Formats: sequence, structure tokens, C-alpha cells
Amino acid sequence: MDLNEQLAARQARARERMDELAIDVLLLSVGADLPYLTGYEAMPLERLTMLVLPRGGESILVVPELEAPRVEPRPGAFELRTWSETEDPIAIVAGLVGPAARSVAIGDQTWARFVLRIQDAVPAARMHPASVVTSPLRVVKDSTEVEALRAAAHAVDAVGAEMRGRPFGGRTELDIHREFSDRILEHGHERVNFAIVGSGPNGASPHHEASARVVNDGDVVVCDFGGTMDGYCSDITRMFVVGEPSAEVRDVYDLLVDAQEHAVRAATVGTSCEAVDATARRIIAAGGYGDRFIHRTGHGIGLEAHEDPYLVSGNRTPLEPGHAFSIEPGIYFPGRFGMRLEDIVVASDDGPDRLNAAPRDLAIVG
Amino acid sequence: MDLNEQLAARQARARERMDELAIDVLLLSVGADLPYLTGYEAMPLERLTMLVLPRGGESILVVPELEAPRVEPRPGAFELRTWSETEDPIAIVAGLVGPAARSVAIGDQTWARFVLRIQDAVPAARMHPASVVTSPLRVVKDSTEVEALRAAAHAVDAVGAEMRGRPFGGRTELDIHREFSDRILEHGHERVNFAIVGSGPNGASPHHEASARVVNDGDVVVCDFGGTMDGYCSDITRMFVVGEPSAEVRDVYDLLVDAQEHAVRAATVGTSCEAVDATARRIIAAGGYGDRFIHRTGHGIGLEAHEDPYLVSGNRTPLEPGHAFSIEPGIYFPGRFGMRLEDIVVASDDGPDRLNAAPRDLAIVG
Repeated sequence: MDLNEQLAARQARARERMDELAIDVLLLSVGADLPYLTGYEAMPLERLTMLVLPRGGESILVVPELEAPRVEPRPGAFELRTWSETEDPIAIVAGLVGPAARSVAIGDQTWARFVLRIQDAVPAARMHPASVVTSPLRVVKDSTEVEALRAAAHAVDAVGAEMRGRPFGGRTELDIHREFSDRILEHGHERVNFAIVGSGPNGASPHHEASARVVNDGDVVVCDFGGTMDGYCSDITRMFVVGEPSAEVRDVYDLLVDAQEHAVRAATVGTSCEAVDATARRIIAAGGYGDRFIHRTGHGIGLEAHEDPYLVSGNRTPLEPGHAFSIEPGIYFPGRFGMRLEDIVVASDDGPDRLNAAPRDLAIVG
Repeated sequence: MDLNEQLAARQARARERMDELAIDVLLLSVGADLPYLTGYEAMPLERLTMLVLPRGGESILVVPELEAPRVEPRPGAFELRTWSETEDPIAIVAGLVGPAARSVAIGDQTWARFVLRIQDAVPAARMHPASVVTSPLRVVKDSTEVEALRAAAHAVDAVGAEMRGRPFGGRTELDIHREFSDRILEHGHERVNFAIVGSGPNGASPHHEASARVVNDGDVVVCDFGGTMDGYCSDITRMFVVGEPSAEVRDVYDLLVDAQEHAVRAATVGTSCEAVDATARRIIAAGGYGDRFIHRTGHGIGLEAHEDPYLVSGNRTPLEPGHAFSIEPGIYFPGRFGMRLEDIVVASDDGPDRLNAAPRDLAIVG
């Protein structure tokens, strides 16, 4: 199946789902739903790009005139409607939606400024997030998508393995961050999405951004990095220590490895998302660190770095073949250090398919 | 005035503006309004970060627990309210907004998924984009902000000047893009926002992204690049040609330089935004290329790469001292090449203050 056929098939499934939910029109702008259904990604700017996909009609992609040259024509997937600098794109979209629309789904990441204006322009339509239509489609990856995720995972595996041979001590987090970023690109990603380098106390902040802090002897360093390769995301966390780790660090890390390993094995088809989360949480709690595991166990991954399904308490969704997600328990000691270990896993009928293969033991670096 | 005092003063002005507009609560998430008023930037992720700033009460910053360590406390600017993975942040925000709110302003770039849920949770409140409150504040840069923009401009000036001595021919656009990006960081930016390298026919696509195309002898190359330095954005476009330019290329470029120069000189206090646009457009039209100048003349710049004021037909706003914006006319020949020339200018009582100083003549490169 070539891309045009694939896009047509995906749009057909989106229309089926719209039928089920009685949604008249799907409106997509920034975010991954648009490339999923059209192959085109909107620029996150103040000039509106929006796909208007009616349940029973042809899709129209509304694009600023100056960005039209970026759009690869997809005759089966959409017709192009450009707007010039003195036209109002909201009026164009509202005209395409039409006055009869009663139920509209709009891309989850669409900017509020556009949402509010479209609501004013089609006041009779009730608005829903587009994910009610698209998430059930996107959450199940087909074999091509799984292989794209696998290729991206192997690329960051190579980065993780290479960094084990590199010095950390005496360098700033930012300098190490730059090296991770460069290597992510060198290994074939088109984009770096993040490269967290959390050294010493900074590692206790799960979403720490690399800073000017100089990495010291004895520091534990959380490295969580990923990007986008051929449209699909990678995401991996590996742990580094400068010099010999203390007994405490070794013990905490052994517990984390155990929790992660059990959670990966638990990620079988039919198991609920929250049960996988509970598996990791139970082991860390039994080790005495339950209150230091302050986030969910994982998130789905695909065209977006974070998407459905989320491995979190309260999510009773059973895993299906093709669900792709991170498994990344963490243990954090404010003011001292943090640890996290993360791989991407795909649920399959043959059991959990762990995409990452970079060494998982503590990397002792200079 | 230290940052805490500055944030308090900005919040006081936001509250005055809310009084004028009878807006009860301001809700800010991703985007630049939040750092402008709190010094904190929300992560663009599925976990909601939101400032709740009531007209007559204290500001509360609602933040995911795992991101709380990233938040620098600002006792005068906000109190922190963290939410754990099993709490619902929408309910927390709705509780803080309160049932009496009738008019709420929400950050222009807030994701639709949050906008729709907040609308459901506070159904009696009419929603407006936050820019009705914040734009009149942010559009006038104070002297500290102008100096931050100037420093960022000088950094990309240095990149532009350096690249005049570098080879272009035989390299891919992506490779040159990487070099621009690296140099933007080396010159002190914390983030690269874009580095357009549009060679030959790709230059006719104003928002072209660097591709695998190899730059050829004779190619005209549009290089439009910028980043964020100490929170403020840079943005500059310079033109490169591989080898001797043709007479046509020289003529078109001379016309463009003339149009840009006159538009810069026209950007005096009291002149309308659309009059500056018209100045550039008139000169290009007189040269015979009016239909090839397919975008507005410029955009405001500050904490965001694109913000008010926009230099576009229909915008009658008169320029005020402290307005900062790009002046970037372009001429595009589909299938052949494009040209654009851009500087950042600040309107001041002493006349237009052009921040960029990198050489503006065609750079002839190898």
C-alpha cells in the first residue's frame, strides 16, 4: 500500500468513526492527526492551517498562500484551498463547515485563539476534541509504524551505547545535552525532541532541562533523550554515574531495574494499562520508595512523543496488539539525585516486544 | 527593578486591563504570556500547566507534581498548586475560577483539549483570547527588552557575517542548516527557532524547510534564521549566491534592498503598520514584481518569534515607541528562486532603530 492509499484508508476509517459518534466535520491543525491523515504537518504559527474533513464530503486543506509551496499534492487525500494575507481563514473554514453542522471535532492541540473564533463562526455546532475520532485509529500501530518506531529506537540505542564511552565529569549538562542532540541527528533523526541531562540533585526533577551545572565526580546522571525519525518518535532513558557508584545508588538502581523488567513482562495483550503501572509501583513500594515514584509508568508513543495509551492508575484500557508505549519507572530524592529507566515496548500476540536494546546496567563514566 | 518587582508590575497592569474589559479571570498555559507574567514557561505537553490570575485575588500556578521542581518560587508573582498523576487539573482550575466567573480570558495557544474541558467546567463564563489583555502590554517593549532584542540581533548578525566566508556549493541544505543552527547556539542563544535554507527553486517557498537538496553553482539561497537568547527572539534573512549572480538576480535584489530600506525608514512613530507594508509593496510593484511579493512585510517580535504588531494591509495601528518588528519584503519566482531581506526594527522617538547590522549586500560564496 503506498502512502496515498494509506491516507485514503485512514480517512475512510476516520469517517466510519465520525458516523459512530455523529460528528459532522473534523477540523485538524497543528499536531499529529493532520500528518496521520494527509501526510502534511502544519506550522505552529499564527497563520491558520486547517484540514476540513466532512463526514460525507471531500477533505479540503486550508493553507496560507505563502506555505502552499510546502504542501505536497495528495489528490486522494485533500484538495488545497489557499488564503492570502488579506483573507480571513476562519471565514473560509466556517464556510466549508457549513451552517448545518451540529457536531464538530477539532484537533486537540489547536490554538485557543482559533477554537474560540470558530465557535463564534459556527455557533450551532457542539465541539469535541478530535482525539475521540483519531485516537482509536492512531493507538494501534500497523507493522510499518512498528518498524518505524523500531528503527528510531535502534538509533537512540546507538547514541546510548556510544555515550557510555564518553566523559561526563567536568562538563556542563548543556555541553553533554548538545552532544546527545548532535548524535541523535547523526543517527538519522530529523528532529531532536528532548535530551534531558539531570546531574546530581537536578536528576530529582524528572523534566529537568539541561543547565550550566558542571557534572561532578560521583554524580548520578539521568539521560532521557529522543527525537523524530521518518515521522516516528524515539524515547529512551539511561543512567550514568561518574566514577564508582555508592552502595545506596547501586541498591536503588537494582530495585528500579527489577521494577522496570517486571512491568515490561507484564505488558501483555489484554492486561490493563493501570495494571502495568501497578506492577512497577508495587515493586518500588515494596523496596521502600513508593512515595519517591512520583509519576505514571509510561505513555504511548508514535507520531507524537506522548500519546495514548497512558500507563497510569485509572486507565483500565486493555493493551491490544500494536499499542506502543514507554515503560519508565523512576525514583527521586529531592536535593540529592534521581533515577529512571525507560524502554519503548509494543504489545503483541507474541508477548511484549521491547524495541530498545542499549545496555541497561549503570554506565560508569569518567 | 528586579525580576520579582517587574513581574508584580506586569501583573498589576494585566489586572487594570482586566478591569477595563470586565474579565474576571486570566488563564495562561503554553505560550509567552505565562513567562511574561511569572518568569515560568509551561512545557507543551498533555499534563496541564495553568496560571489562574483572578482580577481581584492572588495568582495560582497549577503545575504537574513532577514538574514542580522546575518552577522557581516567585512569592510575589504566584503561589504553587501541584497536582498528582491521579488528580484532575481541570477540576482544580475550575474550582479556582469559581462559579461566579462570567468572563474568562485564556492563553491564545492553549490546547483545544483543555479549552473545551474548561468551557464544560465553567459553562457560565464567556471565553476570550488572553491577548486582549496581554497584547497591549507585551507589544510595547521597555528598554530592558529592547536591549535583549538587540543582543539577540547582534548574535545572529555575527552568524550571518561568518557564513559569508563559508562554502555553500556541493553541500545539502540540511548540512548548511545544521551549521547555521550550531552557530546560533555558539553565539549565545539558548534555542534555535528556525534556520531556513532555501536554495534555487526551494527559495521560492517562503517557509521552506531545509531539505536534502544539494546546492548548485549559480544557486540563489535564502537564509532566514533565528533563535531565543535570554528569552527574546532573533530573526534575520540574508541572501547568498554561489558564484557570480546573473544580471536578473542582481536587478531583483537591488529592487528588494530598495524596498526594504524605504520600509525601514517609513517605520516612524505614528505611521500605521499597513503604511509600512504599503511602502515596500509600492516599490516592488513599481519594479514589476507586485504579484511576486506574496506575504505581509513583517511581524512583531519579542518573547515570541511572531507576535503583535503585524505589518499587513488592514492593520491601521500606529507605531509606538517600543514596538519591535521585522521588515522583510520578498520576491518569489516559483520553480526558479526566491529572495527576501529582513531586519528587526524598533520604533522610537529618535526614528526607526534597526537592530541588525550584518552586511546586506548579496553574499557571493563558493
